[in-house]
Amino acid sequence: MPVNFTPTARENLLPIQGIFLGVTEANIKKPGRKDLLVIALESTATISAVFTQNRFCAAPVIVAREHLAREQPIRALVVNTGNANAGTGADGLISAREVCRELSTLIACAPEQVLPFSTGVIMEPLPLEKITAGLPACVRHLGKADWFDAAQAIMTTDIVPKAFSKRVTIAGQIATITGIAKGSGMIHPNMATLLGFIATDARVAPDALQAMLRHAVAQSFNCITVDGDTSTNDACVLMATGQGGARVSSASGDDYIALRDAVTEVAIWLAQAIVRDGEGATKFMTIRVEGGNSTAECRAIAYAIAHSPLVKTAFFASDPNLGRILAAIGYAGIGDLDVSKVQLYLGDVLVAEQGGRAASYREADGQRVMQAPEIVVRVALNRGAANATVWTCDFSYDYVKINAEYRS
Amino acid sequence: MPVNFTPTARENLLPIQGIFLGVTEANIKKPGRKDLLVIALESTATISAVFTQNRFCAAPVIVAREHLAREQPIRALVVNTGNANAGTGADGLISAREVCRELSTLIACAPEQVLPFSTGVIMEPLPLEKITAGLPACVRHLGKADWFDAAQAIMTTDIVPKAFSKRVTIAGQIATITGIAKGSGMIHPNMATLLGFIATDARVAPDALQAMLRHAVAQSFNCITVDGDTSTNDACVLMATGQGGARVSSASGDDYIALRDAVTEVAIWLAQAIVRDGEGATKFMTIRVEGGNSTAECRAIAYAIAHSPLVKTAFFASDPNLGRILAAIGYAGIGDLDVSKVQLYLGDVLVAEQGGRAASYREADGQRVMQAPEIVVRVALNRGAANATVWTCDFSYDYVKINAEYRS
Repeated sequence: MPVNFTPTARENLLPIQGIFLGVTEANIKKPGRKDLLVIALESTATISAVFTQNRFCAAPVIVAREHLAREQPIRALVVNTGNANAGTGADGLISAREVCRELSTLIACAPEQVLPFSTGVIMEPLPLEKITAGLPACVRHLGKADWFDAAQAIMTTDIVPKAFSKRVTIAGQIATITGIAKGSGMIHPNMATLLGFIATDARVAPDALQAMLRHAVAQSFNCITVDGDTSTNDACVLMATGQGGARVSSASGDDYIALRDAVTEVAIWLAQAIVRDGEGATKFMTIRVEGGNSTAECRAIAYAIAHSPLVKTAFFASDPNLGRILAAIGYAGIGDLDVSKVQLYLGDVLVAEQGGRAASYREADGQRVMQAPEIVVRVALNRGAANATVWTCDFSYDYVKINAEYRS
Repeated sequence: MPVNFTPTARENLLPIQGIFLGVTEANIKKPGRKDLLVIALESTATISAVFTQNRFCAAPVIVAREHLAREQPIRALVVNTGNANAGTGADGLISAREVCRELSTLIACAPEQVLPFSTGVIMEPLPLEKITAGLPACVRHLGKADWFDAAQAIMTTDIVPKAFSKRVTIAGQIATITGIAKGSGMIHPNMATLLGFIATDARVAPDALQAMLRHAVAQSFNCITVDGDTSTNDACVLMATGQGGARVSSASGDDYIALRDAVTEVAIWLAQAIVRDGEGATKFMTIRVEGGNSTAECRAIAYAIAHSPLVKTAFFASDPNLGRILAAIGYAGIGDLDVSKVQLYLGDVLVAEQGGRAASYREADGQRVMQAPEIVVRVALNRGAANATVWTCDFSYDYVKINAEYRS
């Protein structure tokens, strides 16, 4: 079960004026579950998106980038789960375009005004007929489905739907923000995670929206890892419908910062939810590296710790076998690291300093911290002012089970 | 159990003239097992060594480097299992030096003529008294123990002892080579693996020996990974006693190449044995990447595949969920990779080309290859002449079990 996580209740998810949601059961991979989502937008909306850096990026990622480059107003997003439409070559591109075309005829816009998204198994042909057959039902439901339904409709190995809402006041006007995300395995985002959609009713200028999304993603989805595998389908979209009273006209100033920080808070909540619901997760770990020469070296060390199967299995076992963390710090590729200056803390317990175990450290203290479901690992490099935080989960029998049996 | 692996029988391990082995049970971590090894060398021997690049390298690695820098003849190596003496700060260095001093008084040489090695749990104090108490028994046994005993005495989570012998004729003279190695987890060597010792009775000039070791390690221990964790204690040592008839006087020429290739063959055998006995391994995978612009990019892609927990769990399940391999190729960091040129083969089966699944590919063919305990994954990049090979194993429940319970 997810670590320290309660899904947001349906009634606490705030509708966004100018966004209409529709879901259906299209039987894409398994019957009896919502697996197709349409998000329709008012024509006033602005939109910004970031995508995976994986060279084998999915067909829908390629098509979505093409459509965004047209700079026509985007009127709808279509998201299927159960099939990633990645590693599918030319046929995959044809299918992704066909899905956009079908939806565009149903909602009366150009195909280029639709963005496609897919998630699920890689290198299997997209079941195009099932998806196009499901689209009319989605469109009929537009406005009847809510964000809770939408979060459910994009799940794969996720155990819980991930959705969060927030309100912020911008120059006396309330802006509402709601976001959903999915992801549980193949999580090591490199630009964005495997499908996050965040919407606000504020009116936001396109360049401000883009800056806001990059900021939010850098602080959230780009700070998590479950298994170190960067997905072919990562995408995060920020939509601003302009239907509420709040206005942000440029990428600076108090109004911009207020909305940006609220969007970032939603993104962090969703990113952490993905880790809490990481495949097989039993622990939620915050890895904080401080006092580095650069953010890059702090991130390299934090990710070395967060990716180490030896560290992750020790956390699963609640075993303070913390020498494995020192080993990970040591192989993170920081050639001039002076290990005698490094301090390692587990929660509030000083574990190591001066190249070895701290004189004050007692195994019982480490044991106490390791028992908790939520653990902070803090590494002080004591050589500069930079820092970085990464969130991750442990590595359990269930991770192996889930991924060994994924297609069965 | 190790994958497709039969340990070399005791009687097939060839003694090396000028090398004397002694082992004992020093009760370092658990009673009733050989855990302390002394390798004594004739004064005619030359020696070369490579060590881990981990910044948190172990105290014995620091001390061994110091002693080698003195350029005095090395007369003995001492190896304990059960404790890595890594992450142990100043006390660890004192202990490593004390082990050398104790042994030097027993065999009548200077402390600087002894090299220490340790393997086992990190960040726990070395049980110095147990080791010094065990040294006299090792020395009494010198010459009575054989390479099979020596291979057993350095095991940690290894299930099987790893040792191999080979003879090669150099200008009419027979050279004998025997090597041992240990390692099963925390295996992603960056210079050498966690403890390999190779000896020959040939007489080899120091610079030739150094070149020979670097060549052998680059082709063997630096081509394997179990879990992507680079150890704090990696070390590989090549010893040439000069007690046989064979001679190699420089790092070039036919004699050099003949001995170098034989040493490399022993090193490859040992490196593959480590992967076959990888923690929890049920499959042995050869990842071969061909047609790259550089060896570095081929290695980056091979390691991305070999490290992916998703790929490794799919192999454990014998599930040809091969899109995960495409995803790993895509995130290996080759920015200008043209995925439409990439071909993926599983054994002799063409799986993917032109950015997607090959038209000829049938799941049943992939399934057939996946059932075997030994699998070759071949990636043709079709953009250059470089290639690289990496050996790895799958990721099973037992890997999690072994590492969750390691200290209990």
